[in-house]
This record gives sequence, structure tokens and C-alpha cells, in this order.
Amino acid sequence: MKLVRYGEIGSEKPGLIDDEGKIRDLSAHIDDINGHMLSDASLARLRSLDPASLPLIEDDQRFGACVNGVGKFMCIGLNYSDHAAETGAEIPAHPILFMKATSAITGPDDKVMIPRNSQATDWEVELGVVIGTACKYVTPDQALDYVAGYCVVNDVSERDFQAKLTGQWTKGKSCDTFGPIGPWLVTRDEIDDPQNLDMTLDVNGERRQTGNTKTMIFSIAECISHLSQLMTLHPGDVISTGTPPGVGLGMKPEPVYLKEGDVMDVWIDGLGQQRQTVGQDA
Amino acid sequence: MKLVRYGEIGSEKPGLIDDEGKIRDLSAHIDDINGHMLSDASLARLRSLDPASLPLIEDDQRFGACVNGVGKFMCIGLNYSDHAAETGAEIPAHPILFMKATSAITGPDDKVMIPRNSQATDWEVELGVVIGTACKYVTPDQALDYVAGYCVVNDVSERDFQAKLTGQWTKGKSCDTFGPIGPWLVTRDEIDDPQNLDMTLDVNGERRQTGNTKTMIFSIAECISHLSQLMTLHPGDVISTGTPPGVGLGMKPEPVYLKEGDVMDVWIDGLGQQRQTVGQDA
Repeated sequence: MKLVRYGEIGSEKPGLIDDEGKIRDLSAHIDDINGHMLSDASLARLRSLDPASLPLIEDDQRFGACVNGVGKFMCIGLNYSDHAAETGAEIPAHPILFMKATSAITGPDDKVMIPRNSQATDWEVELGVVIGTACKYVTPDQALDYVAGYCVVNDVSERDFQAKLTGQWTKGKSCDTFGPIGPWLVTRDEIDDPQNLDMTLDVNGERRQTGNTKTMIFSIAECISHLSQLMTLHPGDVISTGTPPGVGLGMKPEPVYLKEGDVMDVWIDGLGQQRQTVGQDA
Repeated sequence: MKLVRYGEIGSEKPGLIDDEGKIRDLSAHIDDINGHMLSDASLARLRSLDPASLPLIEDDQRFGACVNGVGKFMCIGLNYSDHAAETGAEIPAHPILFMKATSAITGPDDKVMIPRNSQATDWEVELGVVIGTACKYVTPDQALDYVAGYCVVNDVSERDFQAKLTGQWTKGKSCDTFGPIGPWLVTRDEIDDPQNLDMTLDVNGERRQTGNTKTMIFSIAECISHLSQLMTLHPGDVISTGTPPGVGLGMKPEPVYLKEGDVMDVWIDGLGQQRQTVGQDA
């Protein structure tokens, strides 16, 4: 299933995308797409519905983030061997974790706003993993059983805030609108191999990032297992699993960053496409 | 007012502490102590109630975290000049921010559980600031207007997870039960000067930390202002503002860490006392 949240900001309704690509309303069956309905049993109940029996919704809806009520927005840093090389960083011995503020979460096509005093707002296409069932101390071979599904994340990043404000990376990752998630939460049964998904990010129609989840340093299962040694992962938590090469920070002869009016197209095979226009905080 | 959440885990009710130190039930007036009722106007409505008119609740209640539905649990690192000296770290140029997972939040007297594979679980008494009104791009002289109140936080920290797992500090800060908050959310009108509060932490009855919020490097107002340049602070967000000297990591001749059965007493003048027994994850 491709689960979505559609409608205006703050009043999104739950839906699914049918085989014709149309939105079908799930409001009669669930309140929202969130941690309360992401267990295997809950998803199986939704899967048993006949999409044709659900109200058809007009196209041209805004999409909200495909999961609401995210408790933890965890991000893995430097998780693609080719991206680590691009930034000049060493390959880490364990998955690098930083947190992105959940208040950064926006819809997949909402505006991304450059904060005041920003000179270095950058893009990062990433595979997002949505936890479906609580887990702690799980092994890698069990880990994917706790996944509800996958989605596209743009881990928008302010490089100066991230690296030059005597802080931890979270400062450059948590700005408002820096976390577009969606358009779809694609349940894990629909993704044959999450470790073999092509992904791209274009800025103003020019290809900037090209990658495939097979070049991850730590697999999705290894990331989940590692994080679950530290804390309980709860339904609705999101893990963004790192970005492939091609970020603005790594461009030659010098970094290139986002400016007002730029358009980002962010795509992962099977998970849909985001498009954000860049604005500037006054 | 001293606002509390009392009752069993997951079914806490909102209350206040009256002048005799007794719990009075607020359930008839609010659903919970959370970001939806922390504005100045909402708190003024509660303040206008006669505590004697509210149902009296028996003593010996468990307290939950004094605020529920925390969106962001932000922590300021190395924010006491004497603690920075103790750890050998330089005085930072800006407030250091890291995130603590909101899933780490527990009641003030709940057990703190040492995670598996932990050798270095440590304590940190801190002043917690609870945001009452959303704010962004505020100046330090406006910043305290957005505060609902203050509380005690124990920023429990696993030093090896924090420093040796090739990650960001959040790894050692986010373990389950590592975020006792409370017992009371004391509204800001009750605290004459939040920059002059004594604070202590004892382990097994021995004084480990002694501090006063006047030795903060960045004041509460400066921390709020700085964070609000990065992102919107929302009602119910918590900022834990750093710890004074005396953590286990800094003990001589060598660090001393928590072990099963230890008892921590955590106190800040006017904000109440926490007591946690330490357990060990199997």
C-alpha cells in the first residue's frame, strides 16, 4: 500500500493511492497515518479493504508528511561510502546518529525556507524508514520485521549551522521546513529489496545526486539494530538513512547552496517524488 | 503554580500542588499538562481557580513527567563554566545543542535503567525550561516571555555511548529512562530569578553536584534566543540548560559511574526533588 496524508496543513486526512494512482479516503477506517496504525495487524486490516469501495478524492491535493506524530526523527550521517569520500570524512565504525527536530517535518511539496543568516542551505535525498512495531535490542536479522514502510526524505541541512556553531549537527538539521517526508508511506511488502533502490535529486532540473541504497555503509537492518541497542524505537519513529554523493557542500570548484526560487526534485524508485520550491525567511 | 501529572504510567492526570503541599485534581479543567494549555492566558485561567474547590487527592501518588507530549527535548551542553573546566573542554562560543529523544522522558521518581553494555552511566542535575508560547527569532530580552515555567531535569548520560560510538552526543543521552522531568512544572511567575537557583545531586546520600544557575555561561534567555534563530520553539518543548560540576565523569582519581541499586536525589531550589533508584536492563 501507498499511504498518504492529504489536505491543508494541520487538517490532513488519511488516504491511500489506488492502482490508477488516485487518492482514496481512509477517514472512515483510521483517524490518521501515525504510530497507532502501523503495526502489521493494523496494516493488514487496511490491506483487506477494496480500494474501489473507498471515496475517490479529487487530484491536485496537497500532501502532508506521510506519517504524523513522529516521536523521533533519527538520521544516520555519512552512511554512503561514496558520500563519505565526497565530504573527506572517514568511514565511521558505527552508524552516526543525529536527531532532526520533529518540528522540521513538512509535506513533500511544501516550500523549504532558508533561515535568516543562512549562507549554506543544502539538499540530501535519503531513504526514510518508518517503524511500525516497537523494538529494543533487536538483531539485524530481525530488524526489518519492525518496519512499517519506506518513504522519501529530503534531509535539508544548513552546513554552517551544522559545523560552525560550536554545536552538534542537529543545529543545521532542525530548521523549520528542513524535513520534507513523503509523498507516500510505502508499506514494506511492496518493496522487494530496500537495499537496491535508485535515488536522485535535481536542483532546477540539473541532476545533483545519483545513488542507490546498495552503497550504504550500514544497511537499514544494521542501523535499526544499532539504534535499538540504545533506546526503544517506537511506532511512527522515522530513521533517515543517509545520503548518496552530490550534495552542494561537495561541489567543485566550490560548494553551491540553495537560493530563493530554486526547485528541488527528490525521487526514490518506488517511493515517489517530492518537489520543493525554496523560499527565504524574512 | 506547581503543576503536576500524577497516577500510573500512561494514565496520569493533571493536578496542582496547593499551599499545604497537597495534590488537587485539575481533570475537570484541563485534559493534561502539555503544550495545549501552557500559554499565559491558559495558565491565568488555572491560576484564577480556588485550589480548595478542586478535589483533594491522596498522597503517595506516583508523579509522571510534569509535561506531556514534549515535541523537542533540547539540551545545552557544557553550559556551566565550572563544569566545562571539570571536563577539560573549552568554553564554547555559542550554546552547544544536542537532542535527547523524547522517548527517554520518565517521571521524576521512576527507575533509571542502565542499558545493556553500559559501563559509564552518569548523572546531571539541570534546570529545565518549558516553552509556553511559540517563538522564533526572539531576542534575549524578549525570550523569557515565552517560558511557561521551570522544572528539574536529570540529564542521565552514558559517557561511552556519548563519546565512543562514532556518533553525536545524542547516542548517550537518549536511552530509555534517561530523562526524568519534574516533579513540578513551576510557572515562571513563582520564580523570582531563574538565574539564581541552587541545585544539588546526591548519589546514595553523598553530595556529588553542587551548583547555582548563576554560573551558566549562556543565560536561559540567551539559550532560548539562540535556539529560536534556528527553529521555532513550540509550547511544551523542553530546554535542559546544562549541568554544574560534579558529574561522575569528572571524579578523581577516576570516573565513578552508576550501578544497580544506587539512589539519586536531584534537587533545585523551588522546583522540588527527584529520587531515582538505578536498575539494570537484563
